[in-house]
Amino acid sequence: MLTSVRNPLVKQIRALHQAKGRREQDLFLLEGTHLVEAACQAQRSLDTVCYTPDWQTRYPDLWTQVTQQAARLEVVSPEVLRAIATTVEPDGIVATVARSTTPAPQFQQLGLVLDTIQDPGNLGTMIRTVAAVGGDGILLSSNSVDLDHPKVLRASAGLWFQVPLMTSADLPATLQHYRQQGVQLIATHPTAASTYWDIDLRVPTLFMLGNEGAGLSPALAAIADQAVNIPLSPGVESLNVAIAAALILYEAKRQRQR
Amino acid sequence: MLTSVRNPLVKQIRALHQAKGRREQDLFLLEGTHLVEAACQAQRSLDTVCYTPDWQTRYPDLWTQVTQQAARLEVVSPEVLRAIATTVEPDGIVATVARSTTPAPQFQQLGLVLDTIQDPGNLGTMIRTVAAVGGDGILLSSNSVDLDHPKVLRASAGLWFQVPLMTSADLPATLQHYRQQGVQLIATHPTAASTYWDIDLRVPTLFMLGNEGAGLSPALAAIADQAVNIPLSPGVESLNVAIAAALILYEAKRQRQR
Repeated sequence: MLTSVRNPLVKQIRALHQAKGRREQDLFLLEGTHLVEAACQAQRSLDTVCYTPDWQTRYPDLWTQVTQQAARLEVVSPEVLRAIATTVEPDGIVATVARSTTPAPQFQQLGLVLDTIQDPGNLGTMIRTVAAVGGDGILLSSNSVDLDHPKVLRASAGLWFQVPLMTSADLPATLQHYRQQGVQLIATHPTAASTYWDIDLRVPTLFMLGNEGAGLSPALAAIADQAVNIPLSPGVESLNVAIAAALILYEAKRQRQR
Repeated sequence: MLTSVRNPLVKQIRALHQAKGRREQDLFLLEGTHLVEAACQAQRSLDTVCYTPDWQTRYPDLWTQVTQQAARLEVVSPEVLRAIATTVEPDGIVATVARSTTPAPQFQQLGLVLDTIQDPGNLGTMIRTVAAVGGDGILLSSNSVDLDHPKVLRASAGLWFQVPLMTSADLPATLQHYRQQGVQLIATHPTAASTYWDIDLRVPTLFMLGNEGAGLSPALAAIADQAVNIPLSPGVESLNVAIAAALILYEAKRQRQR
């Protein structure tokens, strides 16, 4: 059992807390039983898995599965586990996974386009909501938050492995490609004439949402087929971006089930 | 100018990072220009206001307003400001405010009931969404997250001062009171027969939402007039609670604007 927080493995895994470390090692971090279970269900290979003896006793079935999918297993003390986790009270297991992301989305019915999203909690929540509506995936500008930031994974509630994600260094060009395939591009704008309830969302649709502070960039807003507003009471400037995404995704789902 | 992080004021304000300190001093913390501005707009008295010389130069109008509403003003060094803020990069101002909350909500049209909500970001986001739909307010079980937790204020995007909030030690009794006044109580449940699109939300309505992990307690679910489901794709267990709240609040708004 690893009991020293000075073990080289601790330093190596702690480096994955930062984007730089994930890039250099081409690995990312999975924390907690729920995410490790989701990775196993998605048939992802695990690189190094660290768990406490107590965790092994509590989750014998998942432990068996983990031993079959992991390249390296390490039993660690609770102290070492706390040292490698980003959360204050990790629940007994931390794993590293090769950074190859999910397959690129094929937008055929419904998806999100996110421009310069900064908050990992927002991205994780949007991944969870896209999974909930059965959407095709999420396309992001390459200056958005890291797709495999630990908080993105946590906020996705284990659905990270089910939702195709792709970044694009040239979002306008990528979107033109989808438009040529017959996908409509909808932007949100506070002064748009139509509300999101009033347009036809039964056709293949991509919703474009912008940065938490600055909103959608003018270059992206310009290539939208249509802009819609989400009604806001006086004195309210905007909604949280993950809330705006959910409202429009579920409106599309409502219209498609009528 | 205060330049020493060992000044007693620093210790006193840092204590407000924790619920215990807020209770003992009967004060809470406002961080950043946006929240201080929102407090001034809401005519709230400020207790102690700490700002950097640079902040004063950047916001002369707000500074004038602050000087009229604050009991104590302190110019502080950037180092002291960082020591009293909970954020890594505070934007130049931190204030303390007396803890008397917003007036208790009068539920006449639309509101939320939150049972054992734990995540301050979720609560702040729901405050923002309730403001956006022009809702009456939020009623919470008294074991929920502190209403004036710094992250609640931040996630509310300055709308904290506009949305009436109230905790109840006996939520079922409080809800019976509203029901007798003709407010319908709607719970969400994954196996409910009706979806939230299919019920009449044009009458006065309170939506009940439960804890992030455990959902609504059986005692509360039992007193709902009706339960509704939010459709979820296979493999998805639930939505983020702030997302669920927004979907139902905006469905009520949609129905009422038809």
